Amino acid sequence: MKKIAVLTSGGDAPGMNAAVRAVVRKAIYEGLEVAGVYNGYQGLIDGKIELLQLGSVGDIIQRGGTMLRSARCPEFTTVEGREKALKQLKLHGIEGVVVIGGDGSFRGAMELSKLGIPCACVPATIDNDINGTDFTIGFDTALNTVIDAIDKIRDTATSHERTFIIEVMGRNAGDLALWAGLAGGAETILIPEETYDLPDILERLRRGTHRGKKHSIIIVAEGVMSASLLAEKLNVEEGIDTRVSVLGHIQRGGSPSARDRVIASQFGARAVEALKNGGKTVAIGMKNHQVAEYDLARVFDGDSEFEKEMYTLSKELSI
Amino acid sequence: MKKIAVLTSGGDAPGMNAAVRAVVRKAIYEGLEVAGVYNGYQGLIDGKIELLQLGSVGDIIQRGGTMLRSARCPEFTTVEGREKALKQLKLHGIEGVVVIGGDGSFRGAMELSKLGIPCACVPATIDNDINGTDFTIGFDTALNTVIDAIDKIRDTATSHERTFIIEVMGRNAGDLALWAGLAGGAETILIPEETYDLPDILERLRRGTHRGKKHSIIIVAEGVMSASLLAEKLNVEEGIDTRVSVLGHIQRGGSPSARDRVIASQFGARAVEALKNGGKTVAIGMKNHQVAEYDLARVFDGDSEFEKEMYTLSKELSI
Amino acid sequence: MKKIAVLTSGGDAPGMNAAVRAVVRKAIYEGLEVAGVYNGYQGLIDGKIELLQLGSVGDIIQRGGTMLRSARCPEFTTVEGREKALKQLKLHGIEGVVVIGGDGSFRGAMELSKLGIPCACVPATIDNDINGTDFTIGFDTALNTVIDAIDKIRDTATSHERTFIIEVMGRNAGDLALWAGLAGGAETILIPEETYDLPDILERLRRGTHRGKKHSIIIVAEGVMSASLLAEKLNVEEGIDTRVSVLGHIQRGGSPSARDRVIASQFGARAVEALKNGGKTVAIGMKNHQVAEYDLARVFDGDSEFEKEMYTLSKELSI
Amino acid sequence: MKKIAVLTSGGDAPGMNAAVRAVVRKAIYEGLEVAGVYNGYQGLIDGKIELLQLGSVGDIIQRGGTMLRSARCPEFTTVEGREKALKQLKLHGIEGVVVIGGDGSFRGAMELSKLGIPCACVPATIDNDINGTDFTIGFDTALNTVIDAIDKIRDTATSHERTFIIEVMGRNAGDLALWAGLAGGAETILIPEETYDLPDILERLRRGTHRGKKHSIIIVAEGVMSASLLAEKLNVEEGIDTRVSVLGHIQRGGSPSARDRVIASQFGARAVEALKNGGKTVAIGMKNHQVAEYDLARVFDGDSEFEKEMYTLSKELSI
Repeated sequence: MKKIAVLTSGGDAPGMNAAVRAVVRKAIYEGLEVAGVYNGYQGLIDGKIELLQLGSVGDIIQRGGTMLRSARCPEFTTVEGREKALKQLKLHGIEGVVVIGGDGSFRGAMELSKLGIPCACVPATIDNDINGTDFTIGFDTALNTVIDAIDKIRDTATSHERTFIIEVMGRNAGDLALWAGLAGGAETILIPEETYDLPDILERLRRGTHRGKKHSIIIVAEGVMSASLLAEKLNVEEGIDTRVSVLGHIQRGGSPSARDRVIASQFGARAVEALKNGGKTVAIGMKNHQVAEYDLARVFDGDSEFEKEMYTLSKELSI
Repeated sequence: MKKIAVLTSGGDAPGMNAAVRAVVRKAIYEGLEVAGVYNGYQGLIDGKIELLQLGSVGDIIQRGGTMLRSARCPEFTTVEGREKALKQLKLHGIEGVVVIGGDGSFRGAMELSKLGIPCACVPATIDNDINGTDFTIGFDTALNTVIDAIDKIRDTATSHERTFIIEVMGRNAGDLALWAGLAGGAETILIPEETYDLPDILERLRRGTHRGKKHSIIIVAEGVMSASLLAEKLNVEEGIDTRVSVLGHIQRGGSPSARDRVIASQFGARAVEALKNGGKTVAIGMKNHQVAEYDLARVFDGDSEFEKEMYTLSKELSI
Repeated sequence: MKKIAVLTSGGDAPGMNAAVRAVVRKAIYEGLEVAGVYNGYQGLIDGKIELLQLGSVGDIIQRGGTMLRSARCPEFTTVEGREKALKQLKLHGIEGVVVIGGDGSFRGAMELSKLGIPCACVPATIDNDINGTDFTIGFDTALNTVIDAIDKIRDTATSHERTFIIEVMGRNAGDLALWAGLAGGAETILIPEETYDLPDILERLRRGTHRGKKHSIIIVAEGVMSASLLAEKLNVEEGIDTRVSVLGHIQRGGSPSARDRVIASQFGARAVEALKNGGKTVAIGMKNHQVAEYDLARVFDGDSEFEKEMYTLSKELSI
Repeated sequence: MKKIAVLTSGGDAPGMNAAVRAVVRKAIYEGLEVAGVYNGYQGLIDGKIELLQLGSVGDIIQRGGTMLRSARCPEFTTVEGREKALKQLKLHGIEGVVVIGGDGSFRGAMELSKLGIPCACVPATIDNDINGTDFTIGFDTALNTVIDAIDKIRDTATSHERTFIIEVMGRNAGDLALWAGLAGGAETILIPEETYDLPDILERLRRGTHRGKKHSIIIVAEGVMSASLLAEKLNVEEGIDTRVSVLGHIQRGGSPSARDRVIASQFGARAVEALKNGGKTVAIGMKNHQVAEYDLARVFDGDSEFEKEMYTLSKELSI
């Protein structure tokens, strides 16, 4: 392999730039040429491809977002779209692609590999919902953004002795809600992986009030229900008055945390190694504190593991 | 005057604790006794009053919220409620009160002063909407929280080439939206003090696109309309696709900024001086870079000044 | 076991409070009584011991430092001192102790266990240098503090085209320097585990200059040498002009990161379980992404593992 | 005037980029051409001059440092150097220059104006030591960096019951030390404008100890003496054990605060107006909460005002 490409796709996540930097520098270190594809798979189709140098990725390790930009690309789901992409890759002499993104992006890589282009997939999404890796790039930063918000809201909740419902991202995976709830000292956490229980929520509120604690924080993952719906339920059915906060898009941005920069560097470099050494299509991840590569198909073979003990712990510590 | 009290009332604002600390320490420095009233005017009625010492306000200058807590108090709007409060003040030998809060809280102080209790009012609200002072405690911190959020959202906006509408607090005053919009480099700012103009918003978006800039940030103060309503207008009437972010309660919390801690210290100390020296009812504020005291009535005599030049500047710099 | 105690000892680390909170809440959840010992082993000797309730640890999960305070205690290294401590424990009916701290604190626990008091040791030190656990409480927060400092200094380094030497904590362990250097995009990293090589440092500086990059960041762990000594070496021997920054004590403080709060919660709870279930003296840690308990003696049986691949990676990415 | 230039010079300060952005956008808004000069006066001499567009200053408002870079320039202090600079300005058709920096940079502007080139000087230095303006760009950000450090160190100071001496920047001006000390709740503040008094420092430490407060923070501006010298004095002469922290270069970097971005925008725009309207050599500043322009000579006509009341206040609140 003499030349590879790198692209970012799907929702952006903090640390994508650090991963791009690692791919570029490791590739050059290994004597490969490396090209950046702009705007994800759409850029592959449109030939928005540019050779990158060491200097191209200077001063980006600390930046949120992605310098390669990202985009949705319906065209790539068609045979014609993919053929165009393949043509561009041939045209530019690209023999392997590093895809940085979430599972949607990895499906694209799967298709690309069927056309004979080996792909190394680097998991980057704040949802931490990729099967096969304990952590995805962006999760740690988003987590810190969420607890920063919880800490701020707790100031107001305490001062006014109120109950707040905070809605965080996570359609199918509750990792962000669960970790942030545990780290933020939330009294109640609602996640898609566990059925919630209104009487239990109420019991927790009552218990707090009973021992003189008149404020409370409830974290709800968007996949369970919206914060306003929960507020309505608590109000209409139980006469409990709450305030609502939807954290929204701030969760995706910001300078990546140390941890995200480190795993982004490790994943990016390992992706290059995988392409260089084997030329097979793989996913990169962190398993049991080790950087690992595994067959891409495994990503689609079941859901990301849910840490049940952590959920139990969060309940025990918020008695 | 031998003994004064301090209370916080209305919506909490970062820096209230720094103001409480300054009141307590300055009072003790001046040889006065100082009591803390918990839960605002309600605590005054209920006699939740406690003598404070130097140590009572240790390690709070950096904390958000208010250690004295805050609460709404409909009872204080009645003659009976105020009589109860007066009784408590007499009972505790309190001869003057420092009220820390917004204009609603100041109205309470006005009533209290009619009953013969001099009050010194310290402006603390993130809205910066108190007539007679250039700055209120909490505004600077909220401003920094908002620009931090804008910076984060810009990462995503740039990466996905999208337009974001960010809704910030401010029912009647656009200071937070205007300053944050200017500091955050927003392309468009909508505030209650100025009528907005849909064609102008569109023209700005178009101009950006024309010179290759495909992302855009619009800041809207909640008093103008909700971010989702604006998004709908842009979508339905103009076919423009936007994303929405409502910053909500995170704007009220957090460790106060240096500036807020400094003016809180200055205002709190000056309030004590005002009570000690003159025993008159006054508002404290910052006017032309000087700590000042002025007749409380002036607060209700017109709206807080709007900085028109800053609005003009924001338009000129976002061409 | 009916009653346990918890103490913090040695240098403070962000997340100690979260660990204390977890110990107290988990103990109460498990039906145990739990006492807090103030000022570490000294407080054990002096009987500064107090029963804690759920409310005692409210609103501390987000605070740096330790509410139980910490202190050095030469007296505990003597037989007499330890006898006094034992007496106090008997007096208070305490049957097991959770010790939160670094390896020095763990040695104390070892002694205590010889007197028949089971101890569960929770690793908390920013140095990440405890044998048997992949992570210690406080390391992640310190790491983020260091990269925040690096990001700031890089602004100046870039603007003035200068080389900066940044000295970070770590007498025997280079984890903080290595991770921070990788995450901060440092050009050169000096750690105690690897011999440094002046010609290699110079070569890296030259290579940067050659491709137009005139600024550079060098991270040095205090255990290798001081930043000023390195600056002198580079200046006297090579005529290279550098600026020096010693990060110092800011590395120990601050609100704990999400990750540190989570592992502190996990470790604290697991320590209580260990005491309750087995009553043996153990160390708690994170091994291969699992919370684990292991024989305390293992801590003193060799050094904390050094991640050689990460060091190699840092060199490859800073070509 | 048809074409102006902008340069940054001297020590960098957060907000310089926001000022450059404002100069460029305001100039274009006013129909002027605007060129960026790289590396300060040295770049003027070397002709490192480039036309800037709206897009050239996109996405920089939030960045620390200066995109135009800065440098010392001994050559500009010579007649020959200045003649070269003038030649370059003529060559590029530049009729006026915006100089962003501290008083050293302003002296350069003075010389340039003597050669017939009108200059508008924008004060940017974290020291806040420019005569004629209440605030300089960068001061507010540095202040927040310092109090963040104080907050962190206080965690450790409290946990270990220690006294810390924190050294902050400020050779001739104590503004940073004074404001940060007041905002950080320091027990003692040493600034160049006031003679310090060892017995008073000791008395303050003793008073704290007496009422049970065993930790203490002392802030010292580098212009008074180094933190280690003070530590030695306290140790040798009084047997008091302290810890030392020198904040150093982190004070110059970081994303600018809201306030610094706002005044940078105001100053930058006003500088363009000054050149356009009058073509005179002026300094821009903030006086009594108003953006103002005044004769540049006034900058050198005495020292920046010292806020004595704030010093007194800091003493009263730290009893």
